[in-house]
Amino acid sequence: MATTRIIAEPGAPRIVITREFAAPRDLRFRAHTDPELLVQWLGPRTLTMTVARLDARDGGRWHYTHRDADGNEYGFRGVFHGTPSPDGIVRTFEFEGAPGHVSLETMTFSEHAGKTVVRAIAVFQSVEDRDAAIQSGMEQGFNDSMERLDELVAKLTPVR
Amino acid sequence: MATTRIIAEPGAPRIVITREFAAPRDLRFRAHTDPELLVQWLGPRTLTMTVARLDARDGGRWHYTHRDADGNEYGFRGVFHGTPSPDGIVRTFEFEGAPGHVSLETMTFSEHAGKTVVRAIAVFQSVEDRDAAIQSGMEQGFNDSMERLDELVAKLTPVR
Repeated sequence: MATTRIIAEPGAPRIVITREFAAPRDLRFRAHTDPELLVQWLGPRTLTMTVARLDARDGGRWHYTHRDADGNEYGFRGVFHGTPSPDGIVRTFEFEGAPGHVSLETMTFSEHAGKTVVRAIAVFQSVEDRDAAIQSGMEQGFNDSMERLDELVAKLTPVR
Repeated sequence: MATTRIIAEPGAPRIVITREFAAPRDLRFRAHTDPELLVQWLGPRTLTMTVARLDARDGGRWHYTHRDADGNEYGFRGVFHGTPSPDGIVRTFEFEGAPGHVSLETMTFSEHAGKTVVRAIAVFQSVEDRDAAIQSGMEQGFNDSMERLDELVAKLTPVR
């Protein structure tokens, strides 16, 4: 299984995550920008996801909702800075349950021998915001997402 | 003269700036979103500024160029997260001379007795990016901007 490395330095409003995927980066990129793929892997397994908007261009907006079995909804939204490409994605991120607390996410995808290393940097307006994101169960949600993405990638990648 | 407070903590990719203005916050907000006002104050006195785009809405893009006496141009661009309002402005920021290095800026405006306290937070993808922004002469440019804005505000504000 791929190893996820999560770094959250004390005193710095930042999280850095690196992880390797057994898939070419074009596929990894498509998993982020094709709503039909995205809803199959993003978020905890216990939630269902809908994509109201995913306009993958400079200034384009995105809006996702996760819903639990009791019908509670968790909305997330932001805008893309620059046009997303297999080189990388830069976007803003806001949880609608904590309006005004916005972070900036940068994902880069580098491919070596058919595998893709994803590096994600999230920077927050404050260390408190960063810590609140971690406390919210980010790590569990992230680990679920990564496992689900591995499964999706295995289905989509032809056996060689 | 108003006091500017600039905080750049060691090890944290962030700058926090606070400053008071002798003007209501609606005017301070307009100075950011009306291109005809903006070009009169933003940036060092030695440069002239043009606004190619300033689309002050959620997902709207902005693009400014500063030009020196020798014709050298310095371009800056980004997108707005959320609709800018007198409560605050959240936007991404990228200097075209260092593509891929993006920061997130949050400005809030709070008014007390006709004066406005502006608090600006810039968060960067890394401490190195933050330090590069400071090294680039940010402080001089910022101080020039604030003085020029004081002058503009004095012109626009009726004498009481």
